[in-house]
Amino acid sequence: MLNEKMKALGQNRSKIRDLFEYGKILKQQGETVCDFTLGNPSVKTPDSVTQILIDGLKKSDVHAYTQAQGSAMARQKIASDLNKKGKTTFTENGIALTCGAAASLCGVFKAITSSRTDEIVVLSPFFPEYKVFIESCSSNFKSVEFDNDFSPSFSSLENAITKNTKALVINNPNNPSGKIYTVDEICKITEILNKKSKEFSHPIYLISDEPYREIVFGDAKLPFIPDFYKDTIICYSFSKSLSLPGERIGYIAIPSEISEFIDLYASILGSLRAFGYVCAPSLFQYLIENFNGEYSDFSIYENNLKTLLSTLKNLGFTCNEPKGAFYLMVKAPDGDSEKMSERAKELGLLIVPADSFGAKGWVRIATCVSKETVENSKPLFEKLAKVYNLI
Amino acid sequence: MLNEKMKALGQNRSKIRDLFEYGKILKQQGETVCDFTLGNPSVKTPDSVTQILIDGLKKSDVHAYTQAQGSAMARQKIASDLNKKGKTTFTENGIALTCGAAASLCGVFKAITSSRTDEIVVLSPFFPEYKVFIESCSSNFKSVEFDNDFSPSFSSLENAITKNTKALVINNPNNPSGKIYTVDEICKITEILNKKSKEFSHPIYLISDEPYREIVFGDAKLPFIPDFYKDTIICYSFSKSLSLPGERIGYIAIPSEISEFIDLYASILGSLRAFGYVCAPSLFQYLIENFNGEYSDFSIYENNLKTLLSTLKNLGFTCNEPKGAFYLMVKAPDGDSEKMSERAKELGLLIVPADSFGAKGWVRIATCVSKETVENSKPLFEKLAKVYNLI
Repeated sequence: MLNEKMKALGQNRSKIRDLFEYGKILKQQGETVCDFTLGNPSVKTPDSVTQILIDGLKKSDVHAYTQAQGSAMARQKIASDLNKKGKTTFTENGIALTCGAAASLCGVFKAITSSRTDEIVVLSPFFPEYKVFIESCSSNFKSVEFDNDFSPSFSSLENAITKNTKALVINNPNNPSGKIYTVDEICKITEILNKKSKEFSHPIYLISDEPYREIVFGDAKLPFIPDFYKDTIICYSFSKSLSLPGERIGYIAIPSEISEFIDLYASILGSLRAFGYVCAPSLFQYLIENFNGEYSDFSIYENNLKTLLSTLKNLGFTCNEPKGAFYLMVKAPDGDSEKMSERAKELGLLIVPADSFGAKGWVRIATCVSKETVENSKPLFEKLAKVYNLI
Repeated sequence: MLNEKMKALGQNRSKIRDLFEYGKILKQQGETVCDFTLGNPSVKTPDSVTQILIDGLKKSDVHAYTQAQGSAMARQKIASDLNKKGKTTFTENGIALTCGAAASLCGVFKAITSSRTDEIVVLSPFFPEYKVFIESCSSNFKSVEFDNDFSPSFSSLENAITKNTKALVINNPNNPSGKIYTVDEICKITEILNKKSKEFSHPIYLISDEPYREIVFGDAKLPFIPDFYKDTIICYSFSKSLSLPGERIGYIAIPSEISEFIDLYASILGSLRAFGYVCAPSLFQYLIENFNGEYSDFSIYENNLKTLLSTLKNLGFTCNEPKGAFYLMVKAPDGDSEKMSERAKELGLLIVPADSFGAKGWVRIATCVSKETVENSKPLFEKLAKVYNLI
């Protein structure tokens, strides 16, 4: 009688959410838990952002419906900001405000797929909800293997793309690895996409999911993908950059140079309409109209990362070296990440097995936590290292 | 290459939106337009609501992710408020906070349909986006005719329900007619649903879409539908009751007595997840947690309605007698509502042909406008009456 697929999605929540809920209960019971599960920004929203929101609440029409694609002023602002980054042209007519990155992705996946044979390919490791969103559009999810240091396997990418491939998803900086795809890697990826687009006589879009765009450490630089490939669709969210994850505000942006520009934009708006996204929250559209460029203070994430990396490496764990975002990957010493997460849980350490992220044998540690959590976790990671006879 | 259905949805926007955009351009050009198109509340958000939002912005964790189904406190508050209205039992475990009524409806339609033969039946007249949402779930949209005064035709209802019918949608008070379905009518509807559920050996849900629930005029009373039919799914939005249409905050509520309670709730959460609805906007969840029961001042809508009704009837137009919501229906004198809307547009009056609402030959006038707009419209309606030789 009910939709069994939807029932299963409602029953089997993500591992991350389950662990997070478990931690919440323990905390309510007064237990000390070091919770590294959720990508919930720990850094506060900038005061200037809060002030814009307070000012907005005093405006008489701030809560009114906007155009379905978002207020023209907010779209102009976004287009102008994107145009400063690169060589392609964005205008308000290629921007759609959305209820966050998940809405952006769902809107795009639905817009470019229509048949059960259609495929969307993603680079591993990947945010597990990609699979949910793609399969919910009745399309096929395919992932590309990674090589050392979470770089994409180009031979795997070449094999993955078929005549049914509508798009490739790249998440830069990457969740869960914190990897930044380099200019060299992006050039190799776009070379393959160009070749395959030509071979199959249709554009293969590159969906650049970049909610962590501003969270980049040290001297790392994030390439602006539309400069390398005109058929790029940007999916963005202000969740991480302004510490507003619960408010659901983001956008989809396509450059004027993209293949089928007008029809693609219409299809995206049609998809958002079909899902019941009437408009993005209007108070937060007002925020974007008036945003002064002050992001959250990301130095805390970098400091947490440094402390955790040095702690874990000293204890003998194998970790990657993230360049951005707020996650860190640790290898399960015996290759069993589920068991590692379970063992950590018994010690009061909540870390997420990353198998469902396409990274078998790794666990993900979210570094968007308080400094205190990082400090408190040190003796617990030491106990975990002892369990594995690393020290 | 693109999804043609989505493209069409993006290209062919609703008539209401088109007229609204047209009016906006005219206003920007300094022209006087009496715009009766959109259900955009003209009454301001209560000061107490604004104050709660300002207080919320000062809380450190107000923007954090909530549970996917919404904060437990907000859900408890909603359950407790619903339990005061009737005899069925609502708990936090039957409530899901959503990004507004459209999200509520999409989540429910997807949760209860899975096959291309599945049908959702709606009472005419109806909000046209129902058709978009139902068909986007690959299900069949079916409408039931109305009799005099926009009462449902019970024989048409009886014929419409087949073994493939998963639910009937009732919108009370109704958009576009402002009709309130009476206890007597609801009893007749539920009698048919009970009979058909038994005949086809599966529950036929009654989806009660009630964003206008609080906007009820004079001594009219709105029946609480779960009291009449346990298989009721409530879809609600705070858009109209708190004048927050752009913020996208609402909920789905199912009573504990409903058929397949646990699985239905899981399916609803699964559907919202599949569409990319991560959570309802967290600042507005905080508002619900702290809401003191003060709604917008609806007397202005009632006054506008009285003035418009008396103006239009004196001019010889045939109107209905709305008991709630903020719309009024006027019959096109020659039966051609498209032409009437066009003729009105030429005079600077924006009114929506209601054919796409399942009310052929009628136009819809939204009364959620300023008193000034109502006053300014009088000579324009007089001109329109002359065009039709009514005066």
